[in-house]
Amino acid sequence: MKIHRFIDNFDLSKPELEITGEISKQMALVLKLKVGEKIELSDGTHISAIAYICKIDKKSVLVKIEKINKILKNEKKVHLFCAVLKKENFELVAQKATECGVSKIIPIITERTIKTGINIERLQKIAKEASEQSGRMTVPEISEPIKFLEALETIEGDSVLFDISGSEFTNNYQLKTKNLFIGPEGGWTKKEIELAKQNNFKIATLGPLTLRGETATIIATYLVSNIK
Amino acid sequence: MKIHRFIDNFDLSKPELEITGEISKQMALVLKLKVGEKIELSDGTHISAIAYICKIDKKSVLVKIEKINKILKNEKKVHLFCAVLKKENFELVAQKATECGVSKIIPIITERTIKTGINIERLQKIAKEASEQSGRMTVPEISEPIKFLEALETIEGDSVLFDISGSEFTNNYQLKTKNLFIGPEGGWTKKEIELAKQNNFKIATLGPLTLRGETATIIATYLVSNIK
Repeated sequence: MKIHRFIDNFDLSKPELEITGEISKQMALVLKLKVGEKIELSDGTHISAIAYICKIDKKSVLVKIEKINKILKNEKKVHLFCAVLKKENFELVAQKATECGVSKIIPIITERTIKTGINIERLQKIAKEASEQSGRMTVPEISEPIKFLEALETIEGDSVLFDISGSEFTNNYQLKTKNLFIGPEGGWTKKEIELAKQNNFKIATLGPLTLRGETATIIATYLVSNIK
Repeated sequence: MKIHRFIDNFDLSKPELEITGEISKQMALVLKLKVGEKIELSDGTHISAIAYICKIDKKSVLVKIEKINKILKNEKKVHLFCAVLKKENFELVAQKATECGVSKIIPIITERTIKTGINIERLQKIAKEASEQSGRMTVPEISEPIKFLEALETIEGDSVLFDISGSEFTNNYQLKTKNLFIGPEGGWTKKEIELAKQNNFKIATLGPLTLRGETATIIATYLVSNIK
């Protein structure tokens, strides 16, 4: 039996909780949850609880906390700097990178980026749903697009830029890497790759086949988030 | 400069080649290629050639072979048995598994498979485009859907079925695995997992987060195709 998960700033320190607003509407009208049914609530940090429903209508849901379920250890913080892609591909990035464990998505504008506008609200909603579906306790933050040059100034920790010219993305690098840089449909310019090298980036490739931006994102995020 | 790739049963053994039909139309009218431009042709096996255009109109394109470019070593043969998913997700599977190097996609019908029909022609077209775009020399074959039980009878080589209950999908297994089994939206039944075990399958998981079928497909195919 699938258990529904919800992420919001719930106060999980008390034995009972009243849930109102959009979430109570969703629980009562969309999911049609019933009294006695179990749900999982996360407070959006690293704490989640199993609770059961005592009373439910669209205005208010009363739940009792049964047990604190997981206090996840700190997930590895993976920051994804991904060039803004075509709408449906960038939405795929938001969904899949979340499933694969990304902490933060920073859309970037590179020399060959064609599309520069994004709908953050919609992307954030996609990321929230993907978090709930995949069993994560937190929702990755999606920031406003910034220029590649600005990104270079703000990063901390080891960075990898993906390009077909790079060397193999070995386990050793997967372990160390914190920041992933994925280029636009037309790829990085030579100047950008040079600049990355000057900033001590590793230039890596994911293999002999040319992967689309969104595919490279999924695989790189998975590798870096799940390496032990 | 991006070079356009085409896969068809071209005869690359001669120094000159006349291309007609749909492809010449695409070259002349859609891509608006010009005399002197270089293209890459693959015969759909493992041979490709760089050629340049000598004459072009929508009915016929005359090219000269400049050099045989790659005779790829045998790619690892990865067979993906993926439960039929919702249309857009299964199309994503066809595209991304191709990019990641799959050899054959066998849609399967499991106990919890909801959708059972697929449009093979459309999926095969998506796979062909993904092959051309990613620089592969071959197009994976997509077969008619078969039942999970039938699949069990036809497989050869080591098989892995992905389920959250499984053990870690280690490098050692990535290396040995030939057949990947991915379940439908609602997951595998206990009976199916039991049956897989009886058939000497490994039951593996891709990590603590619940991945959607199409996401698991992309990652598993990449891992198995690219492990050295």
